[in-house]
Amino acid sequence: MSLPQARSTQMAREIAEQPEALRATLEALLPSQGRLSELLSGRRHVLFAARGTSDHAAVYGRYLLETQAGLTGGLASPSVATHYRSDLDLADSVLVSASQSGRTEEIVATQRWGRDHGAAAVALTNGPTSPLAAEADVALITRAGEELAVPATKSYTAQLVGMVVLTLAALRRRDPQAADALEERLRHVPEAVERLLAARAGVDAAVEVLASHRTTVATGRGLLMGTALETALKIEETCLRPVRGYSYADLRHGPIAAVGEGVAAVVHAAADGPLSEPMVHLARDLQERGATVIGIGGNPEFQAAADVHVPGADLPETLAPLANIVPAQLIVEELSRTLGLDPDAPQGLAKVTRTDA
Amino acid sequence: MSLPQARSTQMAREIAEQPEALRATLEALLPSQGRLSELLSGRRHVLFAARGTSDHAAVYGRYLLETQAGLTGGLASPSVATHYRSDLDLADSVLVSASQSGRTEEIVATQRWGRDHGAAAVALTNGPTSPLAAEADVALITRAGEELAVPATKSYTAQLVGMVVLTLAALRRRDPQAADALEERLRHVPEAVERLLAARAGVDAAVEVLASHRTTVATGRGLLMGTALETALKIEETCLRPVRGYSYADLRHGPIAAVGEGVAAVVHAAADGPLSEPMVHLARDLQERGATVIGIGGNPEFQAAADVHVPGADLPETLAPLANIVPAQLIVEELSRTLGLDPDAPQGLAKVTRTDA
Repeated sequence: MSLPQARSTQMAREIAEQPEALRATLEALLPSQGRLSELLSGRRHVLFAARGTSDHAAVYGRYLLETQAGLTGGLASPSVATHYRSDLDLADSVLVSASQSGRTEEIVATQRWGRDHGAAAVALTNGPTSPLAAEADVALITRAGEELAVPATKSYTAQLVGMVVLTLAALRRRDPQAADALEERLRHVPEAVERLLAARAGVDAAVEVLASHRTTVATGRGLLMGTALETALKIEETCLRPVRGYSYADLRHGPIAAVGEGVAAVVHAAADGPLSEPMVHLARDLQERGATVIGIGGNPEFQAAADVHVPGADLPETLAPLANIVPAQLIVEELSRTLGLDPDAPQGLAKVTRTDA
Repeated sequence: MSLPQARSTQMAREIAEQPEALRATLEALLPSQGRLSELLSGRRHVLFAARGTSDHAAVYGRYLLETQAGLTGGLASPSVATHYRSDLDLADSVLVSASQSGRTEEIVATQRWGRDHGAAAVALTNGPTSPLAAEADVALITRAGEELAVPATKSYTAQLVGMVVLTLAALRRRDPQAADALEERLRHVPEAVERLLAARAGVDAAVEVLASHRTTVATGRGLLMGTALETALKIEETCLRPVRGYSYADLRHGPIAAVGEGVAAVVHAAADGPLSEPMVHLARDLQERGATVIGIGGNPEFQAAADVHVPGADLPETLAPLANIVPAQLIVEELSRTLGLDPDAPQGLAKVTRTDA
């Protein structure tokens, strides 16, 4: 009758290992700023190649670079490399290829294609002996340790550290003081994650809502957009429910019509920044349409607007994604067990994805 | 008891007007190639700003430019302009802002921001007197005529013509013969759409599947990725069901675990090109997991793999998106009526979206 203990799943253990994984990754990656800065010299664009969870890290990386470091970013379409074999000139670009294993074939192939077309290549991977790392100009090796559960958790937050380090390298060229300040805040992320793990606040209440609602949407905006997409993917792959991760704006442009009674909406917001206020309006709007709103993070008005509030970390919007995904991971792990599923090994998924069979 | 006649809805009328809208838009936009070519001179990147349906046109435009014209493309994040007010250097970019009305405030603001930061601005809109058109360096005014139904149909396919014309302008600089060949095929699109409208093949059978399945996903890849996203959005906004539009690769990276019995999968494929074969494998895989596959377009193997096949146009992959969305529109319009809804005015949506209240 009783649920298996949270600590008994591999996913729960790996969620709990994040403070350690983040600390080790910070120590490993912060010294790479100099080499990254050299690589960025004379290049104006950063292109990210990634799939699945790594793609959500890339969404964050792109917002962070554009909003903090004044560099334009973009998400590559791997099929342009692997299937269309387009002849693009990437001489002004740095290609950042993110893959937990470093063995996802289409990402390795995209990196190879990028270098052949003039891009400088940065690999961001948890696989130190992977082909992705071996073939990069700079390899950012995260120190998440071996990840055995199929749903990525600690390798994801470790990748986010990599995105911050990349941004620090770019920002330092323009504004060393701002880079120092961001780096100082970054060093406090592991303890912020520790506090969220210890408190586990709001998790049970959120699980109750999600278990009793058949339809779920997840939304966020700007720097927390990737966090919303990642939350949606985690629910999908671990709880076997189709969940739509929407940007705030895309939700307003049509799909909000499908939100009503019986819908649970997971909404991520930051405590500060230019989007904290619009996220309050969105939470209220979703609620007025009949949705049950699970609000993660946000300012006090956002907390008041949510049906269930899950506290986020005491971090600025720029770094909130590294911590606010953690309660979402706790919710997903518990929800999966509540639904009688095994979060460690969702059906139909392998740890290293081959996009083409 | 009987359904309202298809012709009785505004959406049905506007779907039927597409051959005329496409012809008028072709005539209006093809002569703009010279001015676009001048604008592209010395600029290496094309950035698209758009939301909702227009964003799906941008997804197509980006693939088309990268695969056919050797120019790198990317999708702008409007909040970077409107909320974060980032100071980016866009001197090497052309910013293409797409909005049916030309009055979506955040797109107008993003175009203004782009010009302030050095980008050349192309507006792609159905609103000839709109601020978006007035403030652009080159305004591509589609000739879809007034669109009254909330779900965009003819304004969307007209926007796709704009994306082809932009690509023609870039391609002509590199390979005039290839541009001539693409333009020649483009001129045959309106009649291909006419044939699909007249045949209405597979539409009733697809509606039957969708009406009897509670969960729907839509997928496509590469040049047909935007078509899949647009199909998902149309079902969502018109039939008030959350539908997830997946890229092929993202589906393989997790959410495919959520696909099983009771799921209807709408899969778009082209008859040719490097992705036609992988799409056959995906259709078979979805079917093996228990999904009922509605296949639109594709090669003969793809047709054979689908539970319900909806023929696409006799067009190459590059232009298939302009026609293959049309049977999807017919399906959505009929499905909405079958569900007892009004496709012309889905609840909670306005024709001009204000992202921020």
